[in-house]
Amino acid sequence: MRNVVLNIAYDGTNYCGWQIQKNAITIQGVIQKLIENIVQHNIKMRVAGRTDTGVHAVGQVASFKTTSRISDQEFKDALNSMLPPDIRIMDVNDRDEKFHPRYSAIKRWYRYIIYNKDVPSPFFRNYSFWIKREIDVELLNRYCEKILGEHDFTSFAMIEDGSSPIRMVYECEVKRKGDFILFDIVANSFLRRMVRSIVGTFLDKERNKKEPEEIERILLARERKLAGQTAYPCGLYLMKVYY
Amino acid sequence: MRNVVLNIAYDGTNYCGWQIQKNAITIQGVIQKLIENIVQHNIKMRVAGRTDTGVHAVGQVASFKTTSRISDQEFKDALNSMLPPDIRIMDVNDRDEKFHPRYSAIKRWYRYIIYNKDVPSPFFRNYSFWIKREIDVELLNRYCEKILGEHDFTSFAMIEDGSSPIRMVYECEVKRKGDFILFDIVANSFLRRMVRSIVGTFLDKERNKKEPEEIERILLARERKLAGQTAYPCGLYLMKVYY
Repeated sequence: MRNVVLNIAYDGTNYCGWQIQKNAITIQGVIQKLIENIVQHNIKMRVAGRTDTGVHAVGQVASFKTTSRISDQEFKDALNSMLPPDIRIMDVNDRDEKFHPRYSAIKRWYRYIIYNKDVPSPFFRNYSFWIKREIDVELLNRYCEKILGEHDFTSFAMIEDGSSPIRMVYECEVKRKGDFILFDIVANSFLRRMVRSIVGTFLDKERNKKEPEEIERILLARERKLAGQTAYPCGLYLMKVYY
Repeated sequence: MRNVVLNIAYDGTNYCGWQIQKNAITIQGVIQKLIENIVQHNIKMRVAGRTDTGVHAVGQVASFKTTSRISDQEFKDALNSMLPPDIRIMDVNDRDEKFHPRYSAIKRWYRYIIYNKDVPSPFFRNYSFWIKREIDVELLNRYCEKILGEHDFTSFAMIEDGSSPIRMVYECEVKRKGDFILFDIVANSFLRRMVRSIVGTFLDKERNKKEPEEIERILLARERKLAGQTAYPCGLYLMKVYY
């Protein structure tokens, strides 16, 4: 069986996240239906990261197995001609049968975009989270250092049954770029809502001028209720999955 | 009477342009209704540039006269709290009674944004015009030189009855910025569809590798049918009005 791998970009604004659902429009739902029409058999899609409602992707990776002989380029062109304009197939490649978008991945890069100006932008309203007040980027970066390395992220996530809460954070950095603040985080993998919990907590603590040790305390406590609120989904992007 | 001047940014995607219409949702229609609710009397709005359906504005200027004593800051806050998120009031200022957003303006800056990549972006689909092929920016800039200065722009516009087709173009420049191509044009004022006619024609001639003299010939002919097609509205922004 061919193992066809898609690299996908999408504006998540109008979708109930990635994962297929019976009574909601999802990215997977829309793509899978079109692929099944093309290959003329049912498929099972695998994905690198199941994004939530309103979350975007610049480089989502998904795969499906098929007996079809349609070329990768034809898949790409056919899908892009039929998909709504807020979902685009950036690349299609055959990989060996063992390749799994989720389990073969060695790390993922997520970016959270904050629009930091006195009035929100009509253009970036669905693509960033607006914060009016002045933000202490340097303090945020001192928080970032505290989560680098391997930690139990129970305090910063929605833990799903049976999965380990241990994750390895390789990079965590905040930088200002014009009116935007970019919050980048790279880890081996992420727990559910982990990026949004970290961003929400960091912004909450930064607003209250808390010392970086506060982040350490929250991490060590392994209690979700100590962390701040989950940041809004519209600022979050799955940027890239590394294999 | 106070002459209250608004600086407005809007995502024009979901509006039938600026100007108020009976059976369509327009930017002016939405703003004017809210202002009339606030000041409790009918107003007449004046505007710097009536943008078409789907055209955006970063710095549109509009004004209205009122006897209300509500402060500029209160107008700004009240409007932004009631307006849909794709329209934002960036600034409110009282000006003297003679100030007219259209007639007092000395020049306007419009920008046309092209997204130049092999696959269109799901994020910029409403905010730029996608072109896949390689674009010769240098040739476009040679065309730009031909329209600098005072010319009769009959070939590049929809002429409305009785208005002069003579306009003075101060700046016209095309530059590449990452995956985007920015087409900037500054003139004393613009005829209807003028920017989009110029951009559409330039792209058409560039694709066919025409010499810059072709642009001169079209200008001199004063015939709309010699120019190329009008570029799509989604790439166009009224950036700034100068007084």
